[in-house]
Amino acid sequence: MTPDIPDIPEFDDPALDAALQRRIDGKTKPLGALGRLETLGLQLGRILGSETPQLRQPQLVVFAADHGLAAHGVSAYPSDVTWQMVENFLAGGAAVSVLARQHGLALTVVDAGVRHDFAPRAGLLLRKVAPGSADALAGPAMTSAQCAQALDAGRDVVKGLPGNALLLGEMGIGNTSAAALLLARLTGTPIENCCGRGTGLDDAGLARKQTVLRQVLARHADAVAPLQALAAMGGLEIAMMCGAVLQAALERRVIVVDGFIASSAVLVAARLQPAVLSRCVFAHCSDEAGHGLMLRALSVAPLLQLGLRLGEGSGAALAWPLLVSACRVLEEMASFESAGVSTRSEVS
Amino acid sequence: MTPDIPDIPEFDDPALDAALQRRIDGKTKPLGALGRLETLGLQLGRILGSETPQLRQPQLVVFAADHGLAAHGVSAYPSDVTWQMVENFLAGGAAVSVLARQHGLALTVVDAGVRHDFAPRAGLLLRKVAPGSADALAGPAMTSAQCAQALDAGRDVVKGLPGNALLLGEMGIGNTSAAALLLARLTGTPIENCCGRGTGLDDAGLARKQTVLRQVLARHADAVAPLQALAAMGGLEIAMMCGAVLQAALERRVIVVDGFIASSAVLVAARLQPAVLSRCVFAHCSDEAGHGLMLRALSVAPLLQLGLRLGEGSGAALAWPLLVSACRVLEEMASFESAGVSTRSEVS
Repeated sequence: MTPDIPDIPEFDDPALDAALQRRIDGKTKPLGALGRLETLGLQLGRILGSETPQLRQPQLVVFAADHGLAAHGVSAYPSDVTWQMVENFLAGGAAVSVLARQHGLALTVVDAGVRHDFAPRAGLLLRKVAPGSADALAGPAMTSAQCAQALDAGRDVVKGLPGNALLLGEMGIGNTSAAALLLARLTGTPIENCCGRGTGLDDAGLARKQTVLRQVLARHADAVAPLQALAAMGGLEIAMMCGAVLQAALERRVIVVDGFIASSAVLVAARLQPAVLSRCVFAHCSDEAGHGLMLRALSVAPLLQLGLRLGEGSGAALAWPLLVSACRVLEEMASFESAGVSTRSEVS
Repeated sequence: MTPDIPDIPEFDDPALDAALQRRIDGKTKPLGALGRLETLGLQLGRILGSETPQLRQPQLVVFAADHGLAAHGVSAYPSDVTWQMVENFLAGGAAVSVLARQHGLALTVVDAGVRHDFAPRAGLLLRKVAPGSADALAGPAMTSAQCAQALDAGRDVVKGLPGNALLLGEMGIGNTSAAALLLARLTGTPIENCCGRGTGLDDAGLARKQTVLRQVLARHADAVAPLQALAAMGGLEIAMMCGAVLQAALERRVIVVDGFIASSAVLVAARLQPAVLSRCVFAHCSDEAGHGLMLRALSVAPLLQLGLRLGEGSGAALAWPLLVSACRVLEEMASFESAGVSTRSEVS
C-alpha cells in the first residue's frame, strides 16, 4: 500500500512578489522597520495569492497518539496522560484550549492512535489507525500500510476543514523520542544532540532515553527513505500530521508549525515535497534540545523564542496574533502618499 | 525647580509569590513547560497583587517631541515627519494605530514638545513644554525647569488614565540620538556601540551621527546624574515618558516598554528608583544597535526579537497578547487535580 503524495509546486508569481514588496515599502515607516512582520506579510501574501491576504477561520488541530516505545521509560509521564490530556483539551482546561479561545481558533482533536476508546463528541475526530504505535525497539512502529493509512487520514482531515489556515498541535507521551529519531535519521545529526528531556526527564532518565534511541536507530539502520523512517521510528500522530501538511500545502493554506514534534512531521513532508516549506510559518523555537537543530536543518527562522516545551499547539497559538498583525499591516497601514508624510531625505 | 520623584517600594509579599508559583506548577503541563509565559504570569501577579491578575483597559500612550540635534543631520528623515506621523497616528494609518485596533488598546498621543501647533481633538493630549528640545551641541537640550515640567506632565498624564496597564510608545525624529547619549552616559558604554542607524542612516550618515554624539557627550561632560543627563542630552518625550513610568510604577500599573527610546526613559527612571523595573515588561529587543546593550545594562529579558526598529509603541502592542495569555493561563487552565490528569511518575 503506497500513500498518495501530492505534488506541491514552488510559488512562481514574480509580479505578485514585486507588488507585495512595493506595498510594504510604501507604508509609513522606514524601509524594513517592521522586521520579521514584513517578511511574514510577504510570505502570507504569496501563500494566499494576494497583496492583502485575509486569514479566514483558522483551525488548530491537535493530533494525538500513543507510542509503544513509552514502555521503555523514555518519558517522565505515563501513557495514560495522552488520553487524559485529550479529555482536558475537549473540556477546555489545557493550555492550548485557553489560547485557542483567546485567539478565536477553532480547536479539533484527532485521535490518530490513542490507546483508549473515546466517546464520540463535537471537536473530536476519531481516526484511530491503531491503539498506539508498536514498540520500535522490537520492530517497526507502524507497518507501511498503517503509515499510509495515517498519511491519507491526515489529508482527509484537512480536506474537511473550513478556512485557509492550519495550526498544528500534537499530544503523545513518548513522542519527543519519535521526533528525535526522525531528526537523527533524516539529517544525520548525532542522536545525543537530538534527544532532550521531553516533559522533564532527570539525568538518569535522559541517559536511559539516549540508550534506547540509539538501539532503535541500530534496529532500523536500513530505514533511510523518509517514509520508511517515518513508519519504522515515527508515530501515528506524526504520520497523520505529515499528511495534513501535504494536503494543506496543496490547498495553499497557511500552515503554522508548533514545536519539535510538529516540526518533525514537516521535516518528513519536506523531504518528500520541499515546497511545503514555503507554506509553513514556524511559530517558535522550543526548549526541547533538538528543535533548534531541526529548524536549522530546515533553514527556517521561528517567530518566537519563549522557552516553551509543551507542544499541544500552544506555541502556534501564541504566534497566531503576529500573523494577523502582518495581514492587517498590509491592508490597513497608510502609505507615505495617502498620509502626506515626507519621505526620507538623507542629509549629505 | 526640582521634580517630585515618588518613592517606589520593592514588592514584598512572599505569601503571594508562593501562591502564584504553586498555582502555576499545579496546571496541567510539565513543570516550567510554558517557559517565559510562566515568569510573565508571576510578574503580572506580583504587580497587580493577585493570583489571577486581570488586565483592564490597557492604554498605549505615544509621547512625541522634536529634537534640536536633528538639525545636524543625525536622522534620515526631516523633523516635519514628527508632526506628520502624529497626524497619521490620530488618523489611524500608522503601524501602532493598526496594532492598537487589533488588540483593543486605547491609543493616546501626547504632544510633549513637537515643533508644530496641533488642533485639539480626541486622542491627543496637548502637554507641549517647548516646540522641540534645544540643540544639545550648543547647550542643554532642556533647562532643568523644562525637564521637571516634562516629568511632572508625564506623571499627570498617567494619573488621568483608566485601567491598570500602560504601554509606552514614542515619536520624535532624532530621538535615537538622545537615547544613545543617555545609554552612553548612564552606563559608560562607548558611544560607537550605543549609536545605530535609527530610521535608516547610510554609512556616511552613521559616521556623522557618531561624531555629533561624541561632541555632545564632551560638551556635557559634567552631566552625570540621571536627571542632569536627561536635561542636558535627552528629549522632551523621553523626560515625559520617564515621569509616566515613575507614576505608573507608583500606582502598580503594568508597564509595557517598547524599544530603544522607551527603554532609555526607563533607564533614567530606574537610576532614580530601581524598583520601577519590577513593574516593567520589556516587549522586544529592537534592531537598533544600542537596544540589546541597554536591556543587558538593565538586566532584563525582552519577550520578542522580531528585528523591529520602528518605535511608536509597535513592539509593545505586538507583545500585548502574550501578557493576556499569561493572565488567562493563570485563571483558566485546569489543574492536574481538577482535570483528573496523572502527574509525573519517573520510571527508575
